Amino acid sequence: MRTEMPFRHRAHEVSRIEAFSDIVFGFALTLIVVSLEVPKTYHELIEAMRGFPAFALCFAILLWIWHAHYTFYRRYALHDEFTLVINSLLLFVVLFYVYPLKFIFSGMFDRHGYTPANARVIFTIYGLGFVAIFLLYTLLYHHAYRKRAELDLNAVEEHDTLTHVMMFGANVGIGLASVAIAQLAPAEWLGFAGFIYFMIGVCAGTIGSIRGGKRRKVEADMVSESTASMSTQTIQPT
Amino acid sequence: MRTEMPFRHRAHEVSRIEAFSDIVFGFALTLIVVSLEVPKTYHELIEAMRGFPAFALCFAILLWIWHAHYTFYRRYALHDEFTLVINSLLLFVVLFYVYPLKFIFSGMFDRHGYTPANARVIFTIYGLGFVAIFLLYTLLYHHAYRKRAELDLNAVEEHDTLTHVMMFGANVGIGLASVAIAQLAPAEWLGFAGFIYFMIGVCAGTIGSIRGGKRRKVEADMVSESTASMSTQTIQPT
Amino acid sequence: MRTEMPFRHRAHEVSRIEAFSDIVFGFALTLIVVSLEVPKTYHELIEAMRGFPAFALCFAILLWIWHAHYTFYRRYALHDEFTLVINSLLLFVVLFYVYPLKFIFSGMFDRHGYTPANARVIFTIYGLGFVAIFLLYTLLYHHAYRKRAELDLNAVEEHDTLTHVMMFGANVGIGLASVAIAQLAPAEWLGFAGFIYFMIGVCAGTIGSIRGGKRRKVEADMVSESTASMSTQTIQPT
Amino acid sequence: MRTEMPFRHRAHEVSRIEAFSDIVFGFALTLIVVSLEVPKTYHELIEAMRGFPAFALCFAILLWIWHAHYTFYRRYALHDEFTLVINSLLLFVVLFYVYPLKFIFSGMFDRHGYTPANARVIFTIYGLGFVAIFLLYTLLYHHAYRKRAELDLNAVEEHDTLTHVMMFGANVGIGLASVAIAQLAPAEWLGFAGFIYFMIGVCAGTIGSIRGGKRRKVEADMVSESTASMSTQTIQPT
Repeated sequence: MRTEMPFRHRAHEVSRIEAFSDIVFGFALTLIVVSLEVPKTYHELIEAMRGFPAFALCFAILLWIWHAHYTFYRRYALHDEFTLVINSLLLFVVLFYVYPLKFIFSGMFDRHGYTPANARVIFTIYGLGFVAIFLLYTLLYHHAYRKRAELDLNAVEEHDTLTHVMMFGANVGIGLASVAIAQLAPAEWLGFAGFIYFMIGVCAGTIGSIRGGKRRKVEADMVSESTASMSTQTIQPT
Repeated sequence: MRTEMPFRHRAHEVSRIEAFSDIVFGFALTLIVVSLEVPKTYHELIEAMRGFPAFALCFAILLWIWHAHYTFYRRYALHDEFTLVINSLLLFVVLFYVYPLKFIFSGMFDRHGYTPANARVIFTIYGLGFVAIFLLYTLLYHHAYRKRAELDLNAVEEHDTLTHVMMFGANVGIGLASVAIAQLAPAEWLGFAGFIYFMIGVCAGTIGSIRGGKRRKVEADMVSESTASMSTQTIQPT
Repeated sequence: MRTEMPFRHRAHEVSRIEAFSDIVFGFALTLIVVSLEVPKTYHELIEAMRGFPAFALCFAILLWIWHAHYTFYRRYALHDEFTLVINSLLLFVVLFYVYPLKFIFSGMFDRHGYTPANARVIFTIYGLGFVAIFLLYTLLYHHAYRKRAELDLNAVEEHDTLTHVMMFGANVGIGLASVAIAQLAPAEWLGFAGFIYFMIGVCAGTIGSIRGGKRRKVEADMVSESTASMSTQTIQPT
Repeated sequence: MRTEMPFRHRAHEVSRIEAFSDIVFGFALTLIVVSLEVPKTYHELIEAMRGFPAFALCFAILLWIWHAHYTFYRRYALHDEFTLVINSLLLFVVLFYVYPLKFIFSGMFDRHGYTPANARVIFTIYGLGFVAIFLLYTLLYHHAYRKRAELDLNAVEEHDTLTHVMMFGANVGIGLASVAIAQLAPAEWLGFAGFIYFMIGVCAGTIGSIRGGKRRKVEADMVSESTASMSTQTIQPT
């Protein structure tokens, strides 16, 4: 009972949708990190190196988004029209947000001081992108949940799929809250539009601990049930 | 009879041609959306965000083209010299049209007002690209149709392949009509060179409904035939 | 005997080396066609469209090089250290030559008039790249020929491998001749450094017809031999 | 005993992690070689060609790093969370270092003369990147070593994995030594921060020869052992 029952992988080789998405993700990652002009002087090189923390953060965010994609296709291997459309929208949002992301985080570390009016717009832009990404993932995982019979998810996998729907849904809520603060809060409270993103960790932790406890129960039930059905089978074989 | 008989996939893993094409498509998609310069000021960021509708439309067009490619290789898995050559031409046209597409649609949303003379040229350029793409797809699907025996297409698959030839052929016709209007119509009628593209939906709908009805008949025939042959087989086994 | 005996494919799925090479080739293709700046005015768009013949030619050359790569890995599926090193050199030359290629062919169609001195250098640069590419392919196919026992090539496949070595070797010779003319010929004969590339078609045709005749003989021998061995087997089964 | 016992490949097809990494590596390679502006004049072309030695060296370094990646995934096919994180960090460092690498090596061949103060910083930047890359590889191979039971490594494979840990660890040491020299040495000794990288060859040679001798012993033991166990099996079959 110590090692968790794993989620079975339904994908066995990389599909064309995954490969195609990875090209777009790979592109986005590269454009996040690589500036388009080779430094020509020593000064420009040092300047480029100072982008390190902003690049690292954007890179981590993008890889986080990629990882949810990776997990989804590996587990469910869904290639129907619905996932194709959602995936297309996802790729569009990822590409559309590459440079805003880079701009916003570079600005954050540069401390080049946004005016409150600018900050409102920037938090709104970032927030909408964040909402779009996680809304699309919520839809994707919810779609997998609806198809649970067809995908032959067991009780634990069904539970895990719902947990993902909740976690991504919580992120959508956090993004919406940030946008609301950015639009409505007085200037001195504006910082909360940023600080609220720390709630991601809090939400993930809370959902993780509640759902984690329930998962162990589901797993125990599943094991005892399969043992029961096995002993039944021993008695009355078909 | 409610759920349609599906088209069988002859491809089982991603071929090198598909992977190679996807790199080119992925590149084209990225270049459509990502401007090549990172916004450096708040003003530039807002400017970049305003490209949203144009980018979204170009992205959708490109994904539509990609989807026809995806379907073709998944269904027929043809890798002969003919498809290789057509595919190469397709990739060339896609790459060649990335920036004109972006330019044309950005202009459309900016309303920076083309003069009638410019509009003629722009409609012609766009129209020729459109014709080239769909002519190549018409050729590809027609090639699959010619190879129907070798590919072992069943009656329904043969029917669907012809439906694709018709739909793509109709698009070629629409593109040619747009070019003709752009070249010959008086200035006040020039808008029709653009409006005619709404015919894509009309044509697809019409062809879809006519051919869809016939498909159900083909499918019914196929099912009853196979039932008949099965009962025959029961009587006189070979 | 009408349809040729095909060369068997030893590769069954895309290897990592092939996928990696395709990313580099895909990049090169894209950079050939896509100019790095989106046209911003109508005039720039028209200017970009005029690059069509040069881009088409460069694109064709690059796809020709890609096709030799595609064929090599598909047929021999060799992934030893030697092919890895040659392949790396090949990718380097391809990337290094992307922009010179684009420059040279754009210049050719623009007729912006090279001086004879410039022309010497440009023919030399192009020629050396051409020699490098086809020397590397000659080495690759020759390597496959040396490994013919290990690869279990049949008589026809052995013959075809040698034919490739000859054809690529002839291209090396043509490239060297062009460089020699570019360096040594008097200015009025300089054009021959370019015209000599038409010899590619002549050589390929000549080698193809001579070797093609021989291939039919090899094939006939192979068929009769296998028939003979089969009838022997009928008499003395092991 | 002449041909070495090979390391068995646990990977049978390209995983999504490998494909994704290759997109990033392919991007990095391309950006190393291709300058972002097409030469527009004859003079610019010649200028671009002069980058040859610097590009070739950077290309070789990047391919060396890629090759360690290729070997790792081919041999161990590890896709757990730990390798995923290390791999992500690796991709980040590779992308982050593309342009500094290009800048540093272009400068080296241009002899545009760094001041001692600049040289200190440049050697430090390069050294830290070098340390980061090889530290990550040391961790990856050490991780494979820890998982040797799970991966079912035989004695020779276990030996080879440790050899890799040593070689990459030695590179980490060399990088750290270079950084130390760059930071602490008097100006006239600064060159050693560069020359020390020649130690890579010396270390690799030394480790290779010592470990190579031991490998032959391990191999011999393994062979004799398996022969022994086979004869035992003949006597007492289970």
